[in-house]
Amino acid sequence: MKPTRLIMAVMAITACQKAETPEQAAARMEQESAAARTAIEAQNARYGAFMAAGQSDSVASLHTEDSEILPPHERAVSGRANIATYMAGGLAQGTFALTLTSQSVMADGADAFERGTYTFSFTPGPSAPKEMTAMADTGKYIAHWRKQDGQWLIAHDIWNSDLPLPQP
Amino acid sequence: MKPTRLIMAVMAITACQKAETPEQAAARMEQESAAARTAIEAQNARYGAFMAAGQSDSVASLHTEDSEILPPHERAVSGRANIATYMAGGLAQGTFALTLTSQSVMADGADAFERGTYTFSFTPGPSAPKEMTAMADTGKYIAHWRKQDGQWLIAHDIWNSDLPLPQP
Repeated sequence: MKPTRLIMAVMAITACQKAETPEQAAARMEQESAAARTAIEAQNARYGAFMAAGQSDSVASLHTEDSEILPPHERAVSGRANIATYMAGGLAQGTFALTLTSQSVMADGADAFERGTYTFSFTPGPSAPKEMTAMADTGKYIAHWRKQDGQWLIAHDIWNSDLPLPQP
Repeated sequence: MKPTRLIMAVMAITACQKAETPEQAAARMEQESAAARTAIEAQNARYGAFMAAGQSDSVASLHTEDSEILPPHERAVSGRANIATYMAGGLAQGTFALTLTSQSVMADGADAFERGTYTFSFTPGPSAPKEMTAMADTGKYIAHWRKQDGQWLIAHDIWNSDLPLPQP
């Protein structure tokens, strides 16, 4: 074998970019999804704890810098700073109890998609407007998580209620 | 070079499973996302056309067999057959105009995630209950699309309104 042939063979190995097989991709994603689910469930528990503690900045820290939340019956809120302000506005009114429950997580590399359910209740505090009443809700959500510096953060979050729309 | 060395080099190339670099993955996903967006926008146009034509089975055909839709103020609906029944129930009541507008599509292999907005209106037909009134809504959604046999189909779909919650 001529040296050039050997060099070419080495180059071919080095430059080799053969994609994984579908079976390999499925096995990898299954493994990544299981690991992501554990981490995301821990983040969800922190989310609920930060809400209960009224810590809007901590809640916002679980979102990416360019995160977007899509709350029902409101416009979307974009960016961690705006999400912190949005959360602070709500948390100033009273006490929140929020439980997020993962039903499935599908992860592929730095992206994960979670389908889950929530239960939520709100108790107005002393600074709430007089007409504000206690609320309870239960519903479903899809969250897109992104892994940044080893931490799963919310990039997109949309949810809606299971309860019937109030009749005006 | 001995034949065994040549065979080993060939085997190394054949078995090579080196993962793509982050830059290569980003470039691939950008390309896949652009192609997926074009296909998904075409599917969205068909979705609106099938709704306008009152064709619930055609609407359901744009969903995967195990698709799940998460409508607001209702429980989730799972499976293409149940989605067809759900759509047929609505479409029997009157005429729907639905426009879906993609804002972003992120695709990676067989999965794509779309963030979009919708406008929707409903005009009750002759078989609608007398108390049913015309409706109009505008809102946002996240859809998870899955590519099956070369066609992008909806695997998960969740949406909610931008309009204020009616006060009971």
